Amino acid sequence: METINTRRTIRKYSDKDVSEELLGQLLSQAARTQTMGNLQLYSVVVTRSKEGKEKLAPAHFNQPMVTEAPVVLTICADYNRTSVWCRNRNAVPGYDNFLSFINAATDALLYTQTFCNLAEEAGLGLCYLGTTVYMPQMIIDALKLPELVMPVATLTVGWPAENPPLTDRLPAEAFVHSETYLDYTKADIDRLYAYKEGLEENKHFCEINHKETLAQIFTDIRYTKKDNEAMSEGMMEALKKQKFI
Amino acid sequence: METINTRRTIRKYSDKDVSEELLGQLLSQAARTQTMGNLQLYSVVVTRSKEGKEKLAPAHFNQPMVTEAPVVLTICADYNRTSVWCRNRNAVPGYDNFLSFINAATDALLYTQTFCNLAEEAGLGLCYLGTTVYMPQMIIDALKLPELVMPVATLTVGWPAENPPLTDRLPAEAFVHSETYLDYTKADIDRLYAYKEGLEENKHFCEINHKETLAQIFTDIRYTKKDNEAMSEGMMEALKKQKFI
Repeated sequence: METINTRRTIRKYSDKDVSEELLGQLLSQAARTQTMGNLQLYSVVVTRSKEGKEKLAPAHFNQPMVTEAPVVLTICADYNRTSVWCRNRNAVPGYDNFLSFINAATDALLYTQTFCNLAEEAGLGLCYLGTTVYMPQMIIDALKLPELVMPVATLTVGWPAENPPLTDRLPAEAFVHSETYLDYTKADIDRLYAYKEGLEENKHFCEINHKETLAQIFTDIRYTKKDNEAMSEGMMEALKKQKFI
Repeated sequence: METINTRRTIRKYSDKDVSEELLGQLLSQAARTQTMGNLQLYSVVVTRSKEGKEKLAPAHFNQPMVTEAPVVLTICADYNRTSVWCRNRNAVPGYDNFLSFINAATDALLYTQTFCNLAEEAGLGLCYLGTTVYMPQMIIDALKLPELVMPVATLTVGWPAENPPLTDRLPAEAFVHSETYLDYTKADIDRLYAYKEGLEENKHFCEINHKETLAQIFTDIRYTKKDNEAMSEGMMEALKKQKFI
């Protein structure tokens, strides 16, 4: 798994297709991931068709990867299959609740990440689309997801046609705590974020956005309170419609 | 990453310690995982002390791994650090909402799974404790987690002292859909669950529990509607207290 040390998000893909055989092998292999009660509370919708990608694109703010990648995977928290199994086995499922969504979303995300690690080791390039949870109802409609199925992750997958630089990460001391959580002082923040804030690309990012600090790019432009609150409502609405709350 | 093909959950550990060096290296390396806006919306609390493990154990139904493993990791969705950074940088954070919890939980779970893949490749044995989200308030109190920090995963980590058999998985066709979600007929369920239901261990499991079907073990004993609903409320309460909703 040495590829993890040099992994980058890949947004541009070559014309070479991702074979059914390779994709199937990776999707199967990833299922060795631990799963709650061995129920495998996830499903994956594979989109290869032009029309399918075009239907998904608006939910992802029309980011070009969605229509340009040979394969788009939408990974879902899925308590539907398990519930259908139960109903066919004289058992009454009780999974139309918030905890069951969290359990299924957990299963789905752990599965997703093993898939990512396997696919990147196989030389594939991936882009993880966080937009999946922004306007989930559009994805639910596009993929015809039944109740108790909720999209939680999207990956665009293909063979890399770019080689972007490695992005920075915070030092481990920024996110590892010993025994109990030790909150951050101003001095901690200054030390832990110094490298990130000192990067030329981030200084340039502030300049072109006319912002005083890098943090303001996040609070004022990329992830604003207003957007977060509106999308929280949309997410809750979708969870209700899918009968998870 | 060939270890994925033979991975098992490990609940018994040898006396050999997990060195600070190895653990630190794995925790750092896992941070190469993709993360939202490169914000790394997670934190990890490392518990090595006897007292610390004893405080965590009741939240995990006193499963013996918690006190017996040399290391317990509690991985948290964390918007606190980012918010402290923002406040120190003249930026007003807007992450006290449900979508921000989902975003941070996603970051934390993807990070967790890369850690699992790396640790298992290094020969360590892990047990993933799904109980983390059952009674989160107990964990919040034990680890002194501030607002906007929510535990989402726990791993017990050590050198394996057992070699359990490989567990079964559903065939890929059970969870992979092409283009749109195709719901399951009775015939699909019979075919997809035949292997699992035919396993001697599962038949034995039904017998000793006096249940007619394997599905009833889940609905009537392991994950009941009543428990799920009570724990959904506890989870919601904890999310409110942590200011995510």
